Amino acid sequence: MQTTKGVVIAAKGRMEVRDDCPLPDEPCPTGAFIRPLIWSPCTSDAHLCATGCEALPYLLGKAVGHEMCGEIVRVGSDVHDFKVGDRVIVDAVMPVWRSLEAQDGNAKNRSDNMYWGVDYPDRGGSFVETYYIRDADMNLARIPEGVTLDQAIMIPDMMCTAFEGVSQAGIGYGESVAIIGVGPVGLMALAASVLRGAGRVAVVGSRKICFDRARQLGATEVYDYHEEGYLERMLADNGKPFDAVIVCGGSENSIDEGLRILKNGGTLVNMSAYFGDKMIAIDPADWGFGYGDKTIKGVGCGGGRLLMERMAALIANGRVDPSILITQRFHGMDSVPEAMDLFLEHDRDMIKPVIYND
Amino acid sequence: MQTTKGVVIAAKGRMEVRDDCPLPDEPCPTGAFIRPLIWSPCTSDAHLCATGCEALPYLLGKAVGHEMCGEIVRVGSDVHDFKVGDRVIVDAVMPVWRSLEAQDGNAKNRSDNMYWGVDYPDRGGSFVETYYIRDADMNLARIPEGVTLDQAIMIPDMMCTAFEGVSQAGIGYGESVAIIGVGPVGLMALAASVLRGAGRVAVVGSRKICFDRARQLGATEVYDYHEEGYLERMLADNGKPFDAVIVCGGSENSIDEGLRILKNGGTLVNMSAYFGDKMIAIDPADWGFGYGDKTIKGVGCGGGRLLMERMAALIANGRVDPSILITQRFHGMDSVPEAMDLFLEHDRDMIKPVIYND
Amino acid sequence: MQTTKGVVIAAKGRMEVRDDCPLPDEPCPTGAFIRPLIWSPCTSDAHLCATGCEALPYLLGKAVGHEMCGEIVRVGSDVHDFKVGDRVIVDAVMPVWRSLEAQDGNAKNRSDNMYWGVDYPDRGGSFVETYYIRDADMNLARIPEGVTLDQAIMIPDMMCTAFEGVSQAGIGYGESVAIIGVGPVGLMALAASVLRGAGRVAVVGSRKICFDRARQLGATEVYDYHEEGYLERMLADNGKPFDAVIVCGGSENSIDEGLRILKNGGTLVNMSAYFGDKMIAIDPADWGFGYGDKTIKGVGCGGGRLLMERMAALIANGRVDPSILITQRFHGMDSVPEAMDLFLEHDRDMIKPVIYND
Amino acid sequence: MQTTKGVVIAAKGRMEVRDDCPLPDEPCPTGAFIRPLIWSPCTSDAHLCATGCEALPYLLGKAVGHEMCGEIVRVGSDVHDFKVGDRVIVDAVMPVWRSLEAQDGNAKNRSDNMYWGVDYPDRGGSFVETYYIRDADMNLARIPEGVTLDQAIMIPDMMCTAFEGVSQAGIGYGESVAIIGVGPVGLMALAASVLRGAGRVAVVGSRKICFDRARQLGATEVYDYHEEGYLERMLADNGKPFDAVIVCGGSENSIDEGLRILKNGGTLVNMSAYFGDKMIAIDPADWGFGYGDKTIKGVGCGGGRLLMERMAALIANGRVDPSILITQRFHGMDSVPEAMDLFLEHDRDMIKPVIYND
Repeated sequence: MQTTKGVVIAAKGRMEVRDDCPLPDEPCPTGAFIRPLIWSPCTSDAHLCATGCEALPYLLGKAVGHEMCGEIVRVGSDVHDFKVGDRVIVDAVMPVWRSLEAQDGNAKNRSDNMYWGVDYPDRGGSFVETYYIRDADMNLARIPEGVTLDQAIMIPDMMCTAFEGVSQAGIGYGESVAIIGVGPVGLMALAASVLRGAGRVAVVGSRKICFDRARQLGATEVYDYHEEGYLERMLADNGKPFDAVIVCGGSENSIDEGLRILKNGGTLVNMSAYFGDKMIAIDPADWGFGYGDKTIKGVGCGGGRLLMERMAALIANGRVDPSILITQRFHGMDSVPEAMDLFLEHDRDMIKPVIYND
Repeated sequence: MQTTKGVVIAAKGRMEVRDDCPLPDEPCPTGAFIRPLIWSPCTSDAHLCATGCEALPYLLGKAVGHEMCGEIVRVGSDVHDFKVGDRVIVDAVMPVWRSLEAQDGNAKNRSDNMYWGVDYPDRGGSFVETYYIRDADMNLARIPEGVTLDQAIMIPDMMCTAFEGVSQAGIGYGESVAIIGVGPVGLMALAASVLRGAGRVAVVGSRKICFDRARQLGATEVYDYHEEGYLERMLADNGKPFDAVIVCGGSENSIDEGLRILKNGGTLVNMSAYFGDKMIAIDPADWGFGYGDKTIKGVGCGGGRLLMERMAALIANGRVDPSILITQRFHGMDSVPEAMDLFLEHDRDMIKPVIYND
Repeated sequence: MQTTKGVVIAAKGRMEVRDDCPLPDEPCPTGAFIRPLIWSPCTSDAHLCATGCEALPYLLGKAVGHEMCGEIVRVGSDVHDFKVGDRVIVDAVMPVWRSLEAQDGNAKNRSDNMYWGVDYPDRGGSFVETYYIRDADMNLARIPEGVTLDQAIMIPDMMCTAFEGVSQAGIGYGESVAIIGVGPVGLMALAASVLRGAGRVAVVGSRKICFDRARQLGATEVYDYHEEGYLERMLADNGKPFDAVIVCGGSENSIDEGLRILKNGGTLVNMSAYFGDKMIAIDPADWGFGYGDKTIKGVGCGGGRLLMERMAALIANGRVDPSILITQRFHGMDSVPEAMDLFLEHDRDMIKPVIYND
Repeated sequence: MQTTKGVVIAAKGRMEVRDDCPLPDEPCPTGAFIRPLIWSPCTSDAHLCATGCEALPYLLGKAVGHEMCGEIVRVGSDVHDFKVGDRVIVDAVMPVWRSLEAQDGNAKNRSDNMYWGVDYPDRGGSFVETYYIRDADMNLARIPEGVTLDQAIMIPDMMCTAFEGVSQAGIGYGESVAIIGVGPVGLMALAASVLRGAGRVAVVGSRKICFDRARQLGATEVYDYHEEGYLERMLADNGKPFDAVIVCGGSENSIDEGLRILKNGGTLVNMSAYFGDKMIAIDPADWGFGYGDKTIKGVGCGGGRLLMERMAALIANGRVDPSILITQRFHGMDSVPEAMDLFLEHDRDMIKPVIYND
């Protein structure tokens, strides 16, 4: 077993660059080694750091990160579709394709106890000098011509979460959509709603930079949740309850608020993760007393090569440009902790930072 | 405006037979008058009575009831498919077919504030001597040859609720289903699960008579919720989380309990109504932390002629016999209050009573 | 019974403006009279004319046309949502909402023998001075602010056919779509595919003007069916079979050709009408020998107010501009026959003509 | 490479038992060796024999057969869920789970040119003394307690084809279904329709033994296709077009006939394979002129462990007994050719023969 340099959570609230992250001597036959070209930190990385990996203690001291694109530096003997030198996107969630869950159409939920995918927990994330992936043919996607690194890095989590979620919302052409929480995933959910044929798309947030980007991506109305009565105004402006509601932020109350502005027969898709002790409380009246045919879905980030190839096809064919999310750019692994601090400090001008490995 | 005899909620906890229930002098062109042949009271009638129509005060003093089959005694000039003398099933929920909700595939949810259908609130229910229905061609179904009154009376609510709900659960052939609450709707949900191709069907209840009927209808396991750890035992016996969960009773906690035994990627269908002040509280861990792809649906009773004709076709072709639910038989309108008391007294040997109008 | 001026098919290949088209003295309670502001002729009108209404002889001598927007000049006593002076879109297909077909989710297919909707056959089309519609609340949509007449007139058939069809194709984000036939419906199907999240969209046609518009609407490749081997080239360029295929033109062979370039497990949606004696012939090998899970759908134009409101919402919110289809503009009812001749002469520079009623 | 005894197609119309079928010296890490306990020949085996493997010449001289249950005699080092001595069902179609097709939800269609699954073509079928399977954990299902060999052997193809197909037909509770072709797959499709909640199920065939079994399995009407006008009578008896049509036999004309009796908006599922030169010809009028919303699906046999486990759960829980299909029983591999002759001779008393390996 060799070692590689990586960014680890050293203690509650503290990240460090270390050089003793474990790396096998060689990849397994279906595996590959990848040298990162670009990383992007995620709220969930920051949350892990801030809580000292309270929820997942075995991650303490291990490398963080699940949003990375890189270059293949070594492949196992049984890798067919990739070769050394290929520039690739690495998925954040790595489904187990040889599993009964996969046969059930639910490969990404292979593990009941996963944090991010199944490869992550036992060996750490991708903010390392050399990253090892166990099934290259199934979990990597080549970065196609015309797609920049800045665009590609938004695929593994931002797009694979938002587009997966919105695809489950049952949005029909011209329907109205409300998006609660308009950070990076919410903004991609907005783009995904427009690319699903939504008519009116109203977003709820509070930061000016997010509202600006939302308007660029096709939001027709923006609402600040600090202003009292914003839910009532949303309903009044829309003229009727929304056909679909997407929750990408907020709190444990957001589900209930979303149901309140959702039509009977409509679908609410949640993409937020809830890790605390707080219960998600739903007022029966907001849920049609239990019989209003309002559907609630909690959708997780999708994974696998095909999904990433399709996200890349959206970019390559000019349907969406996710690099609009990038607000800060850093260079070198040593700047990762600084980038992560943006999250911990709730920087109001940040949507997504990226770090180039140069 | 003439009057007709009917069973009304006179005060909190008290039903009375009165003879001053309003009835138009003649039906509108698409309407019909129906003389009831059989009624069945529902928990929700009893709940209205017990609370003195607290939630829907305008129903006080009006006729109750929404489960009725009868004989047509008069038809409007624009009724095409029914004639005097036809024996018909009357739907409990009367969708508004000329509505944007109907164009949206959601006719039954025409009114956001309905209790039972749209015809009910403003003029009372069907426990009357002569019942008036406004759109006969769309809301009545002929009782086909070979279907008894005892069977037909279980269609408007018991079957139209249970089969509508289970049809939304996404049950695949051979999948495992858990049914929480095994009263009359739960028992029909069990029959509906078997007729959807379920393999194992485990039911949760407490009363012997319900367990007996459940076994007759195809339940493979029964669990008493008074026994501690029954959810854990259900999981252990099934060997894995359930593919689908149906909630037909219990309390505001039942949704959370159902989610706890549901697989990631599975669907929970709720058919219970929640009218109180209590919140429905969901532990994030039971819901896959919000990203386990567990879907929650709250499905209401279906209505309309076609649905009832299809339920009747199930009976006529020998696929199900819902008269298995009937535990008590009464005669004459005057016995309705007595039948209703069975609910208020939580009679442990009662599943569904019926009253013949003879 | 009064009369109104209208454009009728006088004989095989000949249209005439006449002044004896029947019009009731007043609308029924739910009906309305509409004064057209703009019309657009359709290939099917031209086909009817060219064949002398061979397939539907009862239409001979009756007014043609089903694409019209106008102003309400009179409403029945039971019309709630529209008033005199409202500018409205009239649907091409008028579903019967009080029908068992509607209860079956299939209102538009009320009549097994319809040509265009159910109101059309017995009383002629909308190329008249005063048009009578029987159910205004269910079949009209107000033209919203910001939507021009040129845009609105493309809704009743071009958009309601194309978006209805594409919504049935099961297109996922980033998937590849092939569109065979890129006339006006094909071009709208292209817009609908992009607004469903398609990545690559390849179109097949032959006319330069259509190819130009296709590129503007987001086509990534265009293929001329006159060039030998174009299907093979499509497959080669796409790198694999298409995820979905849309047929909007061509001949009885187009279904088979579409299946040949469709992936196993994919869906082909047909929006062409086939009226001749020719059989649609499918080579088993192209259809995966019958067991390749290739689905074939033949989808008809959608109707009803809600669908048109949603199409208008797409335009009003800037998602699509269907007026891009308009290539010729005429004025006055007398110019309709001239506009129709464009179809009969297969004008290579025509996509859709419109006629303003001024 | 060792060899094993097996039944091969020696020449057009001639099967032979040979002892030189190839077998690897040991299974790969995820593989297993299985000793058959029971086989069942399939029409497609007979068809291969009758045509001398014309369509798939590389199968000449190789072992036939894809319906087998057996006992595991050896497992690879990486098999986790099975051990020597386990009695298992082997799937007829072996999907490639590590494939982009699997990520696309279409694992069974991994190969565009497959006959039966992906393992079959290059190494022959399972009518051998020792059968080698490459991915045991994903393609075997344990025979559960209470399920007999006679029942289990009907799972790999008869049930996995019929239930997979019917699950795609969109059958709702109480709907009417027509099944064209009532051989073994048609009979299982009938059982599957009843277990999907069908009301009326009408079957078309010609043999008395099949009609008898059909009535036992819940058919409400049977029609002999030799009697003129049987399609018209089916429509008349049903009172309206069928909600769904299943094609499990007949000829290239059966699709068109099925469409003729299918409602607009309904689905026809085909499970027949078409290998000849004959085109499948559809009369546009029968298909609603291309716009009647009639859907045509050509569904292939499903594969994989989970599907077989679910089929076994249906049997184990008493929902269906597929051994009702068995009409002839043979013993020993040497009797396979005799069993196969039943097909070639079109024995009118045969539905499915089985051969015990004893």
